[in-house]
Amino acid sequence: MTVSNTPLNNVTAHKQYSEMADMPSTGNAKVADGYPTRLAQAPKSLTQPRRDGVVKGRQLPGPLTQAQLDEFERNGYLFIPNLISGEELESLCQEMNELMSNDAYRDQDFSVTEPQSHEIRSLFAVHKLSERLGALATDERLAGAARQIIGDDPYVHQSRINYKPGFAGKGFNWHSDFETWHAEDGMPNMHAVSASLILTDNHEFNGPLMLIPGSHMEFVPCLGETPEDNHKSSLKAQEIGVPSPEALTHLVGKYGIDAPKGKAGGLLLFDCNTLHASNANLSPDPRSNVFFVFNRPDNRCVEPFAAPKQRPPFLAHGPDERWNPGA
Amino acid sequence: MTVSNTPLNNVTAHKQYSEMADMPSTGNAKVADGYPTRLAQAPKSLTQPRRDGVVKGRQLPGPLTQAQLDEFERNGYLFIPNLISGEELESLCQEMNELMSNDAYRDQDFSVTEPQSHEIRSLFAVHKLSERLGALATDERLAGAARQIIGDDPYVHQSRINYKPGFAGKGFNWHSDFETWHAEDGMPNMHAVSASLILTDNHEFNGPLMLIPGSHMEFVPCLGETPEDNHKSSLKAQEIGVPSPEALTHLVGKYGIDAPKGKAGGLLLFDCNTLHASNANLSPDPRSNVFFVFNRPDNRCVEPFAAPKQRPPFLAHGPDERWNPGA
Repeated sequence: MTVSNTPLNNVTAHKQYSEMADMPSTGNAKVADGYPTRLAQAPKSLTQPRRDGVVKGRQLPGPLTQAQLDEFERNGYLFIPNLISGEELESLCQEMNELMSNDAYRDQDFSVTEPQSHEIRSLFAVHKLSERLGALATDERLAGAARQIIGDDPYVHQSRINYKPGFAGKGFNWHSDFETWHAEDGMPNMHAVSASLILTDNHEFNGPLMLIPGSHMEFVPCLGETPEDNHKSSLKAQEIGVPSPEALTHLVGKYGIDAPKGKAGGLLLFDCNTLHASNANLSPDPRSNVFFVFNRPDNRCVEPFAAPKQRPPFLAHGPDERWNPGA
Repeated sequence: MTVSNTPLNNVTAHKQYSEMADMPSTGNAKVADGYPTRLAQAPKSLTQPRRDGVVKGRQLPGPLTQAQLDEFERNGYLFIPNLISGEELESLCQEMNELMSNDAYRDQDFSVTEPQSHEIRSLFAVHKLSERLGALATDERLAGAARQIIGDDPYVHQSRINYKPGFAGKGFNWHSDFETWHAEDGMPNMHAVSASLILTDNHEFNGPLMLIPGSHMEFVPCLGETPEDNHKSSLKAQEIGVPSPEALTHLVGKYGIDAPKGKAGGLLLFDCNTLHASNANLSPDPRSNVFFVFNRPDNRCVEPFAAPKQRPPFLAHGPDERWNPGA
């Protein structure tokens, strides 16, 4: 990372993390499992309270105002319209088009390819595949915002480009990313934030991201054990690690639903545990975004908490790992 | 029908209809096919102009103002908020619940039943199954509005209740109802109007009806011949009789998309040829409506224009037919 190395302040979440060392270990030999999930039996309560702080770097330098950090803390997300525009936006879109039409990336494990047209719909590890996107991942407007939220200089846990074509793009069901990263990648705690830079206009009819504001404060333990190689199907349609209708009814009833919309170049920052979903794209307008997950180095992944084995590195990079397409 | 029998004025669309008698007949021995569809080859142009008038009974008595008729003529639909409320709405919802939970109607040809839960999702011929809904079908607020639009006292071509449960309700793709009624039921011309009374609040996240305003002025010929018993799958997900992505891109580019929202008790009137779609219900709130298709008696169905045989009567009633559940 090229973001400046700033001293870490006294961060509440760190305390909570050390306090958890006394908890009984379930499924992981070294790190206590603060968020048991993929359960064999329905949990006693629909949700459990979040154990980790939300905004942990208020005193650190970065682009976000205290009011923006307040909004993130309250809602579990923050939309910044028009962060990028003009030539910079055009060149990013151009870069995306080149990556998505690169024959070398079709039908690879790190791409999700449309079965019929062989077009790429999702491409992972783009901060490694592209110098320009690698630079964007360390851009202070993104990485600095992540620093202020998670409380330390971040590393990229996952990156990808998503592309939903007009009419053909499917939606996905409500889920918490953290639930999957915890269960299947071994991310111990909620010290990660996603940054989604929208590269096309987002409107009511092209399947914008929907979020449940405030849902980041509750963890929803999910029912059902993780099958081997679950990611091979879950990246297309998630069946395991999805909250029950009862839990969703409870949370939507309590918090409602929001779907931030805006022009290409807007940035959506959202907490790793904020429940989100999206509907199908019923408009002719494609919807695409470039997406980075920023994690805190001391929250690096360990053994999966609820899966038979770790997922491949293109889905869960380490802070020091040097992934390349042939790895 | 119990609506008053009013004299039919000189209606443009009737002239157009008689002019069409000189056209070459394709697929129907008696009535010229003004709207060829289910084609074996891609049509020469994406759309053809509508041959029929839209509002054909401006001088007839009825509840709609001239301004409302203007709006319908321009957009191909009209939403009337809060048409029904209070006790009347409650008793209609009660009636709906009783019909949808009537064991005698499960797994019948005139109901669409959820495979797993055996719950009814759509129930047809409700104006015949229920006295109360039969009365609603002749209520001047609905049938009178239809009279003003189509230019004569209507009969019910089709009726149904739709029920989309929270989280579980699927969407459906863009289509024109007229295209199906013409191809598969033998409805000759565009002299029908749908009246959808919403029985639950409609909002952005529970899959409200989306329409392309103005699309009623263009007919989209569809590619692909109609398989036998197409309705058995098309009522769940329509694959045949759907416009091409190119035609949809053209029409949405020209006209845009709208999704009227409102409280339970609102009435949406829409022309038989207005393109519409709906997205999945990603909220906990169910979405349901009672739906009548009002057709003009002189536009009664003949032989299907593009299907091997007529669909069952519960999908396409005649003006004189006496359907009953055992028929």
